[in-house]
Amino acid sequence: MIFDILTLFPGMFSGPFDESIIRRAKDKQLIDILFHNIRDWATDRHQTADDSPYGGGAGMVMKPEPLAACIESVKAMHKTSSVVFTSPHGRPLTHRIAMDFAEKPGLIIVCGRYEGIDERIRSLYADDEISLGDFVLSGGEIAAMALVDSVTRLIPGALGSLESAEYDSFSDGLLEYPHYTRPPEFKGLSVPDTLLSGNHELIRKWRRKESLRKTRTLRPDLLSQVMLTREDRNMLIEIEQEKHCDL
Amino acid sequence: MIFDILTLFPGMFSGPFDESIIRRAKDKQLIDILFHNIRDWATDRHQTADDSPYGGGAGMVMKPEPLAACIESVKAMHKTSSVVFTSPHGRPLTHRIAMDFAEKPGLIIVCGRYEGIDERIRSLYADDEISLGDFVLSGGEIAAMALVDSVTRLIPGALGSLESAEYDSFSDGLLEYPHYTRPPEFKGLSVPDTLLSGNHELIRKWRRKESLRKTRTLRPDLLSQVMLTREDRNMLIEIEQEKHCDL
Repeated sequence: MIFDILTLFPGMFSGPFDESIIRRAKDKQLIDILFHNIRDWATDRHQTADDSPYGGGAGMVMKPEPLAACIESVKAMHKTSSVVFTSPHGRPLTHRIAMDFAEKPGLIIVCGRYEGIDERIRSLYADDEISLGDFVLSGGEIAAMALVDSVTRLIPGALGSLESAEYDSFSDGLLEYPHYTRPPEFKGLSVPDTLLSGNHELIRKWRRKESLRKTRTLRPDLLSQVMLTREDRNMLIEIEQEKHCDL
Repeated sequence: MIFDILTLFPGMFSGPFDESIIRRAKDKQLIDILFHNIRDWATDRHQTADDSPYGGGAGMVMKPEPLAACIESVKAMHKTSSVVFTSPHGRPLTHRIAMDFAEKPGLIIVCGRYEGIDERIRSLYADDEISLGDFVLSGGEIAAMALVDSVTRLIPGALGSLESAEYDSFSDGLLEYPHYTRPPEFKGLSVPDTLLSGNHELIRKWRRKESLRKTRTLRPDLLSQVMLTREDRNMLIEIEQEKHCDL
């Protein structure tokens, strides 16, 4: 999969893509990440990429010409890639969207600076717009990092044999169950007995129930979107009863 | 404001914090960002920071001891800072949360690797847990970048005189209005006449209405959380009528 990243700040990406899973995916040639400095497509002597907004007010707006030239040049190279703008107007990124993207041949990610991109660029070129959430970043670069990272780890072969996306939060619509490792007791807190039992079926049930409990407590909105089994529903009844017993 | 970042991958942050608004905020000494490599607190010869999960299964879990020692050491230095874990279990980051954080003396941000942190560390030390959204990252580092960036730009003095957070998306609960800059016509698309009129009141109204239209179209869920003025409500009626005329 090819990621083309169009940005005014390619230097921002020097650290984030050189570690861990993304680095390995690059080494394995599962992904390729290419950077395109939008400023290189400005035609004036000062390589101006922004200009004042029509109608006045604070902030600068990214000029349409360099951005259009940059996008068209990259699209010509990677015709089957989708053009994705990172912006607070976009669809909030979800695990489901990341899974869809992981099946595409490539993404051309356009990083806006949030004072704004000229609206016509959006209408002309955006196949999709993705937001990280209801907050504002100084630019789309960190959102692009999140997008590349969340998509890459879903590409078959990207995770090592000791890792797994199967039980990640959201992979089944729920938050992940709690994790414990040695020592069995730490600062007065013990590992739950079940996890030490060696009984795989009991452990599976404990994890499912704690995953349901965590989701019910912290993100009840997620529960309504999940296909629950009969076992899940029984566990939720137990969780509800245990809550009343605690009072 | 002091950001302490606890991570196994400090190298990831080399690019993202060296540009633009964060760089300037550091130069102006509005913020300070300190990195703490959790591995430095591991006591064995191999500086092991992870271990297998109790109960079996794929993935490694961050060991409690090095993490606890690292958090306690940083907390001892910055007693008034809040400890925030970045994790998919957390509260989804919002503009409102970023505003609250911008008023704190400091944040100690603990970057989990998402195979998992030992649950006891969470119970013992987390003042807050923040998520970027319903997707999975390889680690909390990119989430920490988003958190630092979204908070820093709300610290008074962090934005330059040509920038403004006042009209950002979400600052008034709505998506931002569309931006345009020169040229007045680009690839057959024109800048809306009102923006060229020089009439400030008309421009203000146009922007408010387009902000409402964008929010209504792309994120109707946001509208229900906003205090709408009488003018806003009238604009929304107009938008509704215009929609029917388009059909």
